[in-house]
Amino acid sequence: MARQPILEFWYEFASTYSYLAAMRVEAAASEAGVAIRWRPFLVGPLFAAQGWTTSPFNLYPAKGKNMWRDVEREAARLGLPPVTRPAQFPQNSLSAVRVAILGQDQDWLVPFSKAVFTASFAEGRSIAEPAAVAQIVDSLGLDGTQTVRAAAAEANKTKLRVSVEEARSRGIYGAPTFLADDGELFWGNDRLEQALAWATGDRPKGLR
Amino acid sequence: MARQPILEFWYEFASTYSYLAAMRVEAAASEAGVAIRWRPFLVGPLFAAQGWTTSPFNLYPAKGKNMWRDVEREAARLGLPPVTRPAQFPQNSLSAVRVAILGQDQDWLVPFSKAVFTASFAEGRSIAEPAAVAQIVDSLGLDGTQTVRAAAAEANKTKLRVSVEEARSRGIYGAPTFLADDGELFWGNDRLEQALAWATGDRPKGLR
Repeated sequence: MARQPILEFWYEFASTYSYLAAMRVEAAASEAGVAIRWRPFLVGPLFAAQGWTTSPFNLYPAKGKNMWRDVEREAARLGLPPVTRPAQFPQNSLSAVRVAILGQDQDWLVPFSKAVFTASFAEGRSIAEPAAVAQIVDSLGLDGTQTVRAAAAEANKTKLRVSVEEARSRGIYGAPTFLADDGELFWGNDRLEQALAWATGDRPKGLR
Repeated sequence: MARQPILEFWYEFASTYSYLAAMRVEAAASEAGVAIRWRPFLVGPLFAAQGWTTSPFNLYPAKGKNMWRDVEREAARLGLPPVTRPAQFPQNSLSAVRVAILGQDQDWLVPFSKAVFTASFAEGRSIAEPAAVAQIVDSLGLDGTQTVRAAAAEANKTKLRVSVEEARSRGIYGAPTFLADDGELFWGNDRLEQALAWATGDRPKGLR
């Protein structure tokens, strides 16, 4: 049996388009016959390195205003619940991403990640405090307090830093990003279909 | 007979994704039963107002590198010729956009606009000099020298300034942008399908 193609899905919990991608990537990948490797990371350090102190959607108000409208439209088109804008945007995603990094090879990574996104963008809840993240972990039938504590251990924090550095060194500059195993990079929720096709070897004709 | 829905297509000659949109908008609009109003403008003044001195694809090299690759892939997917990167990017589009503004209600606006995009992104030619623009006008069987001269008249220059101000006041912050007649704004070549659907009254269910 041929090895199933793999596509990496790099996502950031504070990112609206990462949310849209997270809620549809499983079905789309399953239809394409591609295995998804979920890669949580932080875009903040990448943004900071290029001089941004907050999300570009805050830095550029006209762009930000339309982003929220676009996410509302796209969520409706995808059959997701109405988008609720969290009080703080972008939310501090450090505690959540540390837990996701801890769960990297665990079967709860995907349900945890989707629960964090849903809390933030469908329910408008804060995901910034460790207690809020612990509650989400609890809701999956795991021990939230213990998980959040384990996620804050030095070795896990280092693993997150290494992931961010890996993202940067592989050319990632925003989220979500899809990376094929030959290094081909697709930025944005709008490129999921192209990235899946690429992973299966279906490349546009005439491409140099 | 019901009035055909109208969608405005705001484009910038220096913009790679405006190129992709320009080459596919007619077929897509025809299939959707929507009339397209081509609206040439300049994004430079909008970028300058938010502190950008050049294209964000130059300001952020990782983003720029992937943009070129993405445009290559998308051009191939759309069946366009291989993308040729012009020596200068972004090209100075002032002379070309003045001619387009002059052609606003003329039947040569669309063929002229597509010829400018093709010269720039399929042939890698300069479109910056008035002589280069005149040559493109000539190739359409019109008088290039006279057209470029007429486009430089004060009244036409003012018309361009008014268009840019209209873009800004209607919430446009980049190109291409699609505007429905109720003011709904869709940014980017990737939103052409959604914008066409919106124009025909086909809105996502559950949208607030």
